[in-house]
Amino acid sequence: MNALHDLCLGDVLRENARSYPAHLATICAEHRLTYPQLDDRVNRLANVLAERDVARGDRVLWTGQNCHRFLETLLAAAKLGAVLCPANWRQSTDELRFIIEDSFPKVVIFQSEGLGDVQTSLKENLARCSGSWICHDTDTPDSYEALVAAGENSDPCQQVDPSSAVLEIYTGAFAGRPNGALLSHTAIISQDLVISTLQRINSETIFLANGPLFHVATLMSALATFHLAGTLVFTRRSSAEEICRLIDVEHCTSAFLMPNTMREMIELNRNGRYDLSSLRTFPGSKSWNEMVTIDDSPWGRDPAGYGQTEVMGLLTFNAIGGPGTGTSGRPSPLAQVRIVDPDGREVPPGETGEIVCRGPIVMNGYHDRESLNAQRYRGGWYHTGDLARREEDGSISFIAPMMRMIKSGAENIYPAEVEACIASHPGVKEIAIIGVPDRKWTQSVKAIVVPQDGSEITPEEIIEHCRRNIASYKKPRSVVIVDALPRKEFAIDYDALDEAHGGGGYPGIGSLASSDTSAAPRRSETS
Amino acid sequence: MNALHDLCLGDVLRENARSYPAHLATICAEHRLTYPQLDDRVNRLANVLAERDVARGDRVLWTGQNCHRFLETLLAAAKLGAVLCPANWRQSTDELRFIIEDSFPKVVIFQSEGLGDVQTSLKENLARCSGSWICHDTDTPDSYEALVAAGENSDPCQQVDPSSAVLEIYTGAFAGRPNGALLSHTAIISQDLVISTLQRINSETIFLANGPLFHVATLMSALATFHLAGTLVFTRRSSAEEICRLIDVEHCTSAFLMPNTMREMIELNRNGRYDLSSLRTFPGSKSWNEMVTIDDSPWGRDPAGYGQTEVMGLLTFNAIGGPGTGTSGRPSPLAQVRIVDPDGREVPPGETGEIVCRGPIVMNGYHDRESLNAQRYRGGWYHTGDLARREEDGSISFIAPMMRMIKSGAENIYPAEVEACIASHPGVKEIAIIGVPDRKWTQSVKAIVVPQDGSEITPEEIIEHCRRNIASYKKPRSVVIVDALPRKEFAIDYDALDEAHGGGGYPGIGSLASSDTSAAPRRSETS
Repeated sequence: MNALHDLCLGDVLRENARSYPAHLATICAEHRLTYPQLDDRVNRLANVLAERDVARGDRVLWTGQNCHRFLETLLAAAKLGAVLCPANWRQSTDELRFIIEDSFPKVVIFQSEGLGDVQTSLKENLARCSGSWICHDTDTPDSYEALVAAGENSDPCQQVDPSSAVLEIYTGAFAGRPNGALLSHTAIISQDLVISTLQRINSETIFLANGPLFHVATLMSALATFHLAGTLVFTRRSSAEEICRLIDVEHCTSAFLMPNTMREMIELNRNGRYDLSSLRTFPGSKSWNEMVTIDDSPWGRDPAGYGQTEVMGLLTFNAIGGPGTGTSGRPSPLAQVRIVDPDGREVPPGETGEIVCRGPIVMNGYHDRESLNAQRYRGGWYHTGDLARREEDGSISFIAPMMRMIKSGAENIYPAEVEACIASHPGVKEIAIIGVPDRKWTQSVKAIVVPQDGSEITPEEIIEHCRRNIASYKKPRSVVIVDALPRKEFAIDYDALDEAHGGGGYPGIGSLASSDTSAAPRRSETS
Repeated sequence: MNALHDLCLGDVLRENARSYPAHLATICAEHRLTYPQLDDRVNRLANVLAERDVARGDRVLWTGQNCHRFLETLLAAAKLGAVLCPANWRQSTDELRFIIEDSFPKVVIFQSEGLGDVQTSLKENLARCSGSWICHDTDTPDSYEALVAAGENSDPCQQVDPSSAVLEIYTGAFAGRPNGALLSHTAIISQDLVISTLQRINSETIFLANGPLFHVATLMSALATFHLAGTLVFTRRSSAEEICRLIDVEHCTSAFLMPNTMREMIELNRNGRYDLSSLRTFPGSKSWNEMVTIDDSPWGRDPAGYGQTEVMGLLTFNAIGGPGTGTSGRPSPLAQVRIVDPDGREVPPGETGEIVCRGPIVMNGYHDRESLNAQRYRGGWYHTGDLARREEDGSISFIAPMMRMIKSGAENIYPAEVEACIASHPGVKEIAIIGVPDRKWTQSVKAIVVPQDGSEITPEEIIEHCRRNIASYKKPRSVVIVDALPRKEFAIDYDALDEAHGGGGYPGIGSLASSDTSAAPRRSETS
């Protein structure tokens, strides 16, 4: 009789339908659904999926832009104990094919408008999935809407284990291919509570889900809003104009906004055409602050933290634990975090090591990656593959993915530490550290430096600066002076630097890349 | 490898010791402990308890006033997978003896000052517990402090199941004796998150635990404060003077205050002797509001709800779900709530039934009450034994304990409904409804009425008023006019009314009272 203590996503929907009978759950173009209407449609869809053999543990794949049917599909899968795999619709045909073959869904729900070609060609190629492709945005007799309308309307009432997976999100292409992180009902429900506390989400929240729902950042706030019986507004287009229009018309109280979008919104709304005053968000320029309501929630005052898809979003939060010297705040109240050496021993504050964690927010593992999972879960702790430091005051500083850790002799060298040292030289404008393969020492350190305008800094000066400030084995063996560093979106493109300057041989990448074959060496054996 | 997703109270302490190394966890008279110091003392105490044979599932009983050692004992039990039973120290020797015999603790931790006699006599009488009594407030060689100082300081590192019980709180004397509600790590941790969201508890919270810690009301806020790495201030005395002094000296941000205490504090602090400005609390009179900081948290604006010890405090919250017509708000985001008829079928909004619920906050059952548990958990839902109504807008109105439901013929009659009807008569000042045994109809309805001053209202007029306004079978068969109703603390004393006016035969009391013997009739069979 464990159901007594269980709480699954289907249960949250059932309770919201009881407790919020007239409350709007979703708004998507002309479609507006109250919680009872959403529950009714989810029941019908779940019965449609069950007829197509979707059972406990089976995957349902969603490939399409944001839509209320995305949430319906997640909740229908949840009521059956099945798993929703939200695929990135921006992917190439080959990438999408890989995810479909890897996740092996019983049903694929796809979008026709704008995305039809890639998917039609895939559908024809993937014979084993044929017959279970459902188009969600047409009105043919076999479309999503026709099936839902004809579906049996009773709640499937399956007993679902809250520790079972309900989401599979592909992430982290360690070995040149992504892995599907399996997240449980409990992981989502736990994160919902933490996020709703920090972002002050409640039944009056109207969240504009304009960021992609296949990404955990938007999904995290969207699911917390659903859980707390708020209203979700979906849009396919994330243009500044569409965002402004929806905030104005639907009185959205929050949205997923990047700095670029904020700038475009300010520009667009110079004449005050849109009323954005319902939006509670971060402060910005004076004209921004006059348009919106400044968010005084803990998250609004101190956003972000450190996280991964594998922990359903964030593991540490700047908004938790008051001021700290670390760059990533303190751990979620629903997690334990340790910084460990390669043998799993906790390192003292101030020393860098791998972040490992435990708790209900941690994923159940990657789908169908037995040996990678064994490696990631060794010693009973989830190994994030990221480096961090615990500061003396207990706060956490994220440093870098371990994949770029440099191994020189027996020593681990963290590029970020060397970069911080070199960046402190007044003649240096920008700096990136890479590791280059070295027959004797495994790797050696190479610095790629952009000098300050007018500076005539030499490689020797940089090496000498390091010798005086950090342990000698960390100093670069070679320095290259360049005009600019290559960038990918906002960040330095280290892959391009490796390619241009002979980088490679990173032990982190080596062990992670090879960990998915049963003959892979254990991490501690690669040194 | 399930420990990966587990989070137990011991884990919360371990993480707080890592993340808040310099933060004060507890203040109790001259004792001040940081989180690492608390963790160290808890480890030592856990090892002391383990040496005394306390293992998984065993009980440790605390009988004493509020003290930091209460929290230490809870956490030491938690690290061993054992259960803390906090006994009400205000009880009589017989009551305490019952709880000790019923919970059968391996170790009793007791207080000498002010409470020694009762316990000394008990200790001598309870031979089976002898040798495992530890006095926490003396400095003899076998006292708590001496044992902790000598205890092994390593973390016991037991793997503990978060769904196992860690608290046993005696409550609800249905059959003339209380039952020990077993609450799990998960129940506490879940409630911590909800309470901390609504009361805005964080690491800067300094909670004055002046209410009794053996009661879930104070315990709920105290444990949420511990979980979020705030500071707990303990005091044995809950006098207005002591409360004012501690708020002033320790800058407490919250406390457990009843209206009476607030009045005494205002009186005491007329001259502004104490600085109470750190205290965030409910608004009151003008002089109160000038002394304190008005709490603008969701809980501060809209406190209370409906709950029981059996759900680790509150199940519904006025602060959840926005305005509603119900008197008890909406359910916790970590629970499902239904209002059901005696056969477990959900009744429509507007109709009265028993509140049943599910979710991680629900207790594991009563200790050693097999058949009562079977009855309370029938159909996979926890039956609260309380009556409520779901309003049309989804909110909940608590009505009354089922124990006072009246059964007349095949009909259930809820005294509160009849009382509300009679109270609406202008000639009535106060009213109480009881049921009296009736050979033919099981029970019949009797009204005890206090007329308005000067009113000459007759029994016939009252019965006629009911006939016109509610279903005829609900009207009283007899009416007694009295000068005043007996009261116990703030509430009408229905037991005294039953005794004075021949009340009794309530089916709710009958079934609950007899449910603890295996031959007890099922509730649905008692009609």
